[in-house]
Amino acid sequence: MQLERAKGTRDLTPEEEILKSHLLDTLKKTFELYGYNPLQTPLFERLETFKLKYAGGEEILKEVFTLKDQGQRDLALRFDLTVPFARYIGMNPNIKMPFKRYQIGEVFRDGPIKFGRYRQFTQCDIDIVGAKSLLAELELLTLAQETFKQLKLDTTLKINNIKILKALMRKTGIKEENEGSIILTLDKLEKIGKEGVEQELNQKGLEQEKIQELLSILLSKGSSQQKILTLKKILGENEGLQELEFLLKKIPNLVFEPSLARGLNYYTGTIYEGHLKNSEIKSSICSGGRYDHLISEMLKINRNFPTLGLSFGLDVILDAIKLQHKEEQKTVTKVFVIPIQTENEALKLCHELRKAGINTDMDLLTRGISKNLDYANYFKIPYVIILGTDEVKKKKFTLKNMNTGKEKLFTLKNLIKELK
Amino acid sequence: MQLERAKGTRDLTPEEEILKSHLLDTLKKTFELYGYNPLQTPLFERLETFKLKYAGGEEILKEVFTLKDQGQRDLALRFDLTVPFARYIGMNPNIKMPFKRYQIGEVFRDGPIKFGRYRQFTQCDIDIVGAKSLLAELELLTLAQETFKQLKLDTTLKINNIKILKALMRKTGIKEENEGSIILTLDKLEKIGKEGVEQELNQKGLEQEKIQELLSILLSKGSSQQKILTLKKILGENEGLQELEFLLKKIPNLVFEPSLARGLNYYTGTIYEGHLKNSEIKSSICSGGRYDHLISEMLKINRNFPTLGLSFGLDVILDAIKLQHKEEQKTVTKVFVIPIQTENEALKLCHELRKAGINTDMDLLTRGISKNLDYANYFKIPYVIILGTDEVKKKKFTLKNMNTGKEKLFTLKNLIKELK
Repeated sequence: MQLERAKGTRDLTPEEEILKSHLLDTLKKTFELYGYNPLQTPLFERLETFKLKYAGGEEILKEVFTLKDQGQRDLALRFDLTVPFARYIGMNPNIKMPFKRYQIGEVFRDGPIKFGRYRQFTQCDIDIVGAKSLLAELELLTLAQETFKQLKLDTTLKINNIKILKALMRKTGIKEENEGSIILTLDKLEKIGKEGVEQELNQKGLEQEKIQELLSILLSKGSSQQKILTLKKILGENEGLQELEFLLKKIPNLVFEPSLARGLNYYTGTIYEGHLKNSEIKSSICSGGRYDHLISEMLKINRNFPTLGLSFGLDVILDAIKLQHKEEQKTVTKVFVIPIQTENEALKLCHELRKAGINTDMDLLTRGISKNLDYANYFKIPYVIILGTDEVKKKKFTLKNMNTGKEKLFTLKNLIKELK
Repeated sequence: MQLERAKGTRDLTPEEEILKSHLLDTLKKTFELYGYNPLQTPLFERLETFKLKYAGGEEILKEVFTLKDQGQRDLALRFDLTVPFARYIGMNPNIKMPFKRYQIGEVFRDGPIKFGRYRQFTQCDIDIVGAKSLLAELELLTLAQETFKQLKLDTTLKINNIKILKALMRKTGIKEENEGSIILTLDKLEKIGKEGVEQELNQKGLEQEKIQELLSILLSKGSSQQKILTLKKILGENEGLQELEFLLKKIPNLVFEPSLARGLNYYTGTIYEGHLKNSEIKSSICSGGRYDHLISEMLKINRNFPTLGLSFGLDVILDAIKLQHKEEQKTVTKVFVIPIQTENEALKLCHELRKAGINTDMDLLTRGISKNLDYANYFKIPYVIILGTDEVKKKKFTLKNMNTGKEKLFTLKNLIKELK
């Protein structure tokens, strides 16, 4: 038997995990600066939960991994973090509002495998429940920009509003019951291009004339302000446009993109997507929007749960960060201790260094010096200490800088100072 | 339809996640001090992998969640982190040794649900591959003790050696092919008691006389040294006893427990388990041992992969930490800003505080002061700033300490200094 991973999955090596760990720390720190608290839901849910109205939708349900427990209950691995979050709020409807949470975790889709697309991937969501004010949008978009600044990623945040799209469709004479389906197709603009979208809208029964009218407006060129003017002429007073203008005024870097749509049909207001500038990575690195009906629909009660969310694609962000770094960090270890018949003293030295907070490793195989230096070199450990009986006697330690090759003698106290 | 979680799963609330996050940070920091690097494997594997010799064993395979992908491939949610780790090494046999990694992640067992037992739980494993020296045992056991010191948990580490158990069984006249099965029963001592073990060994066909002989030795009272003396008299020279004596000499707090066995049959040498002292929690909080054959068995090649591992039960450790804390931290937020018709200025103030690294939240609902104070109180946010037009004019900020109720006036600079 050949040892293999399950199809579409991967291991993260120490190099990749070290990088991912830095990324997660930055994200968590930034979210917490804005008052978001962590929450965790299970990796699988009852299949029924994902079949709820607005939750999955047919296209996603096809890609859900299903399983049964010993009691023959139908379960499913989660395909996103939004539905489990809505389920959590639904089960805790009296939670203090606004409830601001972030969640970082694995999600699963049993779909076709492409380069950079896996069947298990990491999502990172922040959401606010119970805030209908545009202050929520303002906060989440500011937070998105701050996050990318912290990650040193040059990003464009595109914004649109479902209310504008819907008003435009009504204006074009499209029936309300078809709106959702048409928005799903519009979301594919980037993926299948203008012609692809035209074709799909045609297949969905939309007249050629209406398709042209809709797309010509959505794809009009110009600044955010020019686009707003165009749409104002067509739509007149419109709530979506007002919301948009408020946000554009407060956050000058936002880009209004009338053709921006989202492939999930639970959005009700502002929607947004982040893209890298000048990068070979073309797919979005974050996206989200306002979904005011999802939770009430789940609960089937007549109470509002205005909700706004933002989801970061951690895998694509990791790829972007990798492109920035020339060299990967292969180990967390800062100094490697090589005992030459001084095992006990080496153990003591390691203990002192670790106590001082210095990541320390030592030879566990009683190998020779050159093999140990090879090992340290391979992992690019920055410092090495070779500990002979002479050093032990004199209570001095030779620190070898593996980058420069230079050696220097230190007392324990100064050694710790140098390595800190 | 009732909203529910999948049976045997749970959500972690912000309070619990904040605590867990502190715990994980401590663990990772400690592991990295000892030169262990992070690694991550997928949450599901091919079912075949878990069916490999030494991997699961029948009792565990019964509790494995199985699933299929769209290509009808048989998959399974991982039930531990050891088998996937062995699979990783098996697929990367030329990795630089010793390879020291830690992995923290969710594992799944479709078993009966009891208080504190879930179908999804968190494991935290550290392992060394490629070190047959007892220095590896020394390091891992020291690391275990250091971890518990960092977590302020008073713990007993019990140690035993499979070689001692096997020599004793041979001495008692037990056939080699029955050894594994008998060790599995011995592991249940704590769970089903002496009588239960006697009964099960009897069912497995072991003669009453041999059962009594075996148990009387394994359960003999006395200090570690006394027990070693007893066993030396019975077994004579024994590798397991020698290894044990080396470790007991180096780590004085270890307790030799001859009846300690492990419920997995891949262990080959030193085994250990950690228990809380003076605690209502009786189950082990960490365990592990040396398993030198598992990886070579998987690879079916004639090469040694001496391996040593230690696994922490994160959920039980979290329970233990909860018992220590009288009050849970409900939010990461340090200061809550309440604007009184000063929205724009409040946003600016939040920006400054966040820039200084202070976790800041603000009212997003334009509620009145008393409702906002209730909100801050509920979450036990330590500080509140009420920002009126007067404060904005004077560029002074009133900081309310929510514990003492006292208020004090600060400039922005001093405000930041006070909150840092």
